[in-house]
Amino acid sequence: MANSTPQRKLAQKAAPPARRPARRTRRALPARTTRQVSLDGLTDHLGYLVRRAQIWIFQDFIRTLASVDIRPGQYSALTVIKANPGLSQMALAQALGIERARVVHLIDALEARRLVKRQSSRHDRRSHALHLTADGQRAMVRIRDLALQHEKRVTDLVGAGNHKMLLRLFSVFAGS
Amino acid sequence: MANSTPQRKLAQKAAPPARRPARRTRRALPARTTRQVSLDGLTDHLGYLVRRAQIWIFQDFIRTLASVDIRPGQYSALTVIKANPGLSQMALAQALGIERARVVHLIDALEARRLVKRQSSRHDRRSHALHLTADGQRAMVRIRDLALQHEKRVTDLVGAGNHKMLLRLFSVFAGS
Repeated sequence: MANSTPQRKLAQKAAPPARRPARRTRRALPARTTRQVSLDGLTDHLGYLVRRAQIWIFQDFIRTLASVDIRPGQYSALTVIKANPGLSQMALAQALGIERARVVHLIDALEARRLVKRQSSRHDRRSHALHLTADGQRAMVRIRDLALQHEKRVTDLVGAGNHKMLLRLFSVFAGS
Repeated sequence: MANSTPQRKLAQKAAPPARRPARRTRRALPARTTRQVSLDGLTDHLGYLVRRAQIWIFQDFIRTLASVDIRPGQYSALTVIKANPGLSQMALAQALGIERARVVHLIDALEARRLVKRQSSRHDRRSHALHLTADGQRAMVRIRDLALQHEKRVTDLVGAGNHKMLLRLFSVFAGS
């Protein structure tokens, strides 16, 4: 991980960008290779760069938590259920900004692994209150530890000061 | 858009976060509503917030470019082909950091709309050189104009200085 591309790139950021070679006759050349590809017009869009960042961060998360087989969406669900025992699937979907159907699918998988349980609500028979099981509570110790190892790598990559600033700046998108 | 949630939230960021009510007996209560849901343990993960940001930004992009029916991935492909006429599908996939199969699917759709054409390469019969068509060149004027309107909204949301800083900071993830 320490030698991953973004990290090396970050160290090189002071260097000026390489210039593309001058355009030559189109048909005489083989298809261009990656090194020559210009991202002009794309890298001035924050959405493009945020998407690339998100993919890199999620891939690192998935690798880091591979031993416990927990993906980002599952981690989000477990963390919110742990912090809000008894919340409904609807409330979980709204808090995470994802579709109800996706939450049902997420909870099905976590319930099959006996990490989460649905309890029917006394107040609304159609609504299920979500809780971690005892196994889920225990598993969360290791899961949280690995997630923090992942976050440490993200922090090292962007710098601790930038990490804090980004958390503050992007909290505006989390709706809570 | 001016009254969207993130924008209002940004204006309120100085206010201290609301405290969750003290925990009461679990079973006596109905399932919790969204307002009470704590994201403790989640909002200290940059990946979570970057994902929320990406979803918000992409939704705004899709809405803004709805009249030309261009989604973020299609815009990326068109922009890179415009800046690099004659590049191969493989080079496009590598530059965008996406799978070859996804690029083939993207180009199929853009070719069907006569915005992009594949030309077989003289040097490698298996490789196709990608170009915008004349229609594609013309369409890109309007598409780019709408994309910049979208970017203006993102810039207004995070602030012009932050926008510039974020582009610089996140360029490390774009691999170019």
